[in-house]
Amino acid sequence: MLEYLPLCDSLGVFALIDPANAAHTDPIGNVVLMLAVILIAAKLGGHAAARCGQPAVLGELLAGVVIGNLYLAGVSWFEPLKSDATIDMLARLGVLILLFEVGLESTVAQMLRVGASSFFVATLGVLTPFALGWGVGAWLLPEESGYVHAFIGATLTATSVGITARVLRDLGRLQSNEARIILGAAVIDDVMGLVILAVVSGIITAAASGAEASLADSGWILAKAVVFLVGALTLGVWLSPHLFRAYAKLSGPGLLLSAGLAFCFALSWLAGWIGLAPIVGAFAAGLILEDHHSMPFAESGHRSLADWIHPLSSMLVPIFFVLMGARTELRAFQDPALLILAGVLCVAAVAGKQACSLGIVGGGIDRLSVGIGMVPRGEVGLIFANMGAALQLDGKPVVSGAVFSAVVIMVIVTTFITPPALKWSLARGAARRTS
Amino acid sequence: MLEYLPLCDSLGVFALIDPANAAHTDPIGNVVLMLAVILIAAKLGGHAAARCGQPAVLGELLAGVVIGNLYLAGVSWFEPLKSDATIDMLARLGVLILLFEVGLESTVAQMLRVGASSFFVATLGVLTPFALGWGVGAWLLPEESGYVHAFIGATLTATSVGITARVLRDLGRLQSNEARIILGAAVIDDVMGLVILAVVSGIITAAASGAEASLADSGWILAKAVVFLVGALTLGVWLSPHLFRAYAKLSGPGLLLSAGLAFCFALSWLAGWIGLAPIVGAFAAGLILEDHHSMPFAESGHRSLADWIHPLSSMLVPIFFVLMGARTELRAFQDPALLILAGVLCVAAVAGKQACSLGIVGGGIDRLSVGIGMVPRGEVGLIFANMGAALQLDGKPVVSGAVFSAVVIMVIVTTFITPPALKWSLARGAARRTS
Repeated sequence: MLEYLPLCDSLGVFALIDPANAAHTDPIGNVVLMLAVILIAAKLGGHAAARCGQPAVLGELLAGVVIGNLYLAGVSWFEPLKSDATIDMLARLGVLILLFEVGLESTVAQMLRVGASSFFVATLGVLTPFALGWGVGAWLLPEESGYVHAFIGATLTATSVGITARVLRDLGRLQSNEARIILGAAVIDDVMGLVILAVVSGIITAAASGAEASLADSGWILAKAVVFLVGALTLGVWLSPHLFRAYAKLSGPGLLLSAGLAFCFALSWLAGWIGLAPIVGAFAAGLILEDHHSMPFAESGHRSLADWIHPLSSMLVPIFFVLMGARTELRAFQDPALLILAGVLCVAAVAGKQACSLGIVGGGIDRLSVGIGMVPRGEVGLIFANMGAALQLDGKPVVSGAVFSAVVIMVIVTTFITPPALKWSLARGAARRTS
Repeated sequence: MLEYLPLCDSLGVFALIDPANAAHTDPIGNVVLMLAVILIAAKLGGHAAARCGQPAVLGELLAGVVIGNLYLAGVSWFEPLKSDATIDMLARLGVLILLFEVGLESTVAQMLRVGASSFFVATLGVLTPFALGWGVGAWLLPEESGYVHAFIGATLTATSVGITARVLRDLGRLQSNEARIILGAAVIDDVMGLVILAVVSGIITAAASGAEASLADSGWILAKAVVFLVGALTLGVWLSPHLFRAYAKLSGPGLLLSAGLAFCFALSWLAGWIGLAPIVGAFAAGLILEDHHSMPFAESGHRSLADWIHPLSSMLVPIFFVLMGARTELRAFQDPALLILAGVLCVAAVAGKQACSLGIVGGGIDRLSVGIGMVPRGEVGLIFANMGAALQLDGKPVVSGAVFSAVVIMVIVTTFITPPALKWSLARGAARRTS
């Protein structure tokens, strides 16, 4: 066998097969079955939501909740879906493509025009929930240390932009100033969240080890993030038309899509490498690319880049939302003692983001909708809570199991109330303007 | 910690994050960087191939070979790409979408019209290489048992349809009868390969254990495969218009794409579950779906299903071919002793498939092109060889390390010569017809 083993390497050639799996079976079989289930469930959920006058994304989330919690009724067919590595990656690719597509609908100049509003909205949207979260911690968990209260505050600061972007797209409102303020604020929020995470965990680590907290690391993280955003938006705007013109000189079909995706993927990777969420890079790539980037490619197909991306997002985006729904554990809601802390956290999470509307510069903006658009917390809040669970202080985790579960419920609630609330507030704003 | 552990479950909620990875990093970062490299490499390779008058797929393969063998020059940046699980799955999804797209270009009726030719082409394309491979084994490895010779023959029978389908698409020849004969023969070939694999390994296992070989298993496998193909093509043609009409009644965007993909994925899964290659199911799904399936969806978008699928295949298909190239180990060619066996195997592999042209019923067909189109062996030959390496007879593997390496070289050579050879023979056939 020793002679054979090194040759196993060359087995990789062309194989695309698992060397351990000599039978004529292909692991893609299970993946495509899950994809078929997700695609159909998404459309059924979207249809049901549309019939109730709700954005399709709410239906996709709820279809996911049904699939993911059928095991409570004894049906465990769909359990592998929740943890399948390929489905997980396709979902991540889906939200990346969604933010790229959303970015394509605006330009850097349009975003800068509401830049001041976005900045103040993001700042208030971080400070107020942080203070409220700290206060909730001090009120309901007086026996815990101030570090724990600070960490609870930190978990309330984040904004998960995927849900809001999708609702705005479902309602055809991506071109509004409200949408641009929210999306810009979400990007700035991501940078601020990164810094807060570094500062809070730096202070706690220092406290645990008895050393003094160093703020140099946080400053370095902030500097990298700002350099990335400013660099991408200035250098990108200047350099990308040249890159695209050079790429368009190649022969072959599908060049525009390939150029757009490669640009989006490169910036997403760079954002992730800096420590930002990759979706921030995808969104920046979308902002940078404008119609004139497609011009040199016009001879081959006459479709715009958005037209090319649309089928990709139609396939991949529902995977993200159905999976998000499927991973919602309804069991989390079964502990009454926990529900009090969770309920107060939810109120603080929603109320805290309403302060955002005070940050808007200038008139004619539907302030309530901006506040509601900032509500969903998503994965960033969980990353914070998770980090707190891993940090030890006086021999026990900073974020206890009960606090962690309450944060999970807060994330679920803020995510699911956003689609109907945002639809209602946008309709209300539009009615006011016409009356 | 015990209190915290069960709650880790609820961490899955919304998270899409690795619980072990508390930092603000997303594993999609590495995947999208690899995707950007693959997309750009594919276009550069395709451009170079087009400049040399070759099909784009040859350029994508060679771009992959460069990426995958740069480590020989000390550059190991791209090594993770070869074994990344997500890239592997996206490649498999790519070849599935390619065969679905290729299937969409023909109908079941058109395939049945050349069905007799396909059947005889497949039969000769299995029997002749099997006999030649057996002969090569008996000639060059006289000290080995007849089982080994039979296994070498079996590895030469397979046809890997991905390359040929892609070349025919690159050249805009998918609508020709030659294309339909090759594609139909490749599907039948897959069924025959499945049966041969069962028979040969059944006989060897029986010989090793001293028991008598049972042919009931092979018969059962054949029956399942035939029932799947006949069932899919009759029941599918009858049932799918009803399913599509019902689905079209849902509200929401992207319904046609979702219906088409779900249908393709469901049949791919079913094919894989039966034991056939999932691409056979995807191809069957493409054949079944026709323009009238899209009609009920016409109100929403006015794009045909093929238009919806095209951007997906533009993104995913190059991943398959670049990865195939990247996994080609040039080191396999460095052993001179091996090259004799490999060279003779290559001659047998190419010559054996030329017998296919005798199976074509009726005139006006470019017989040489059909023979060349059947040449690439791809992953199925390797699956056979791999199975032989796992089977033990008299305490040593039926397929030794040296034979395995020779098979790998045969697979590489037959795959890389097909694009230029097929382009040449199709041009020659067209010139003859017009002269």
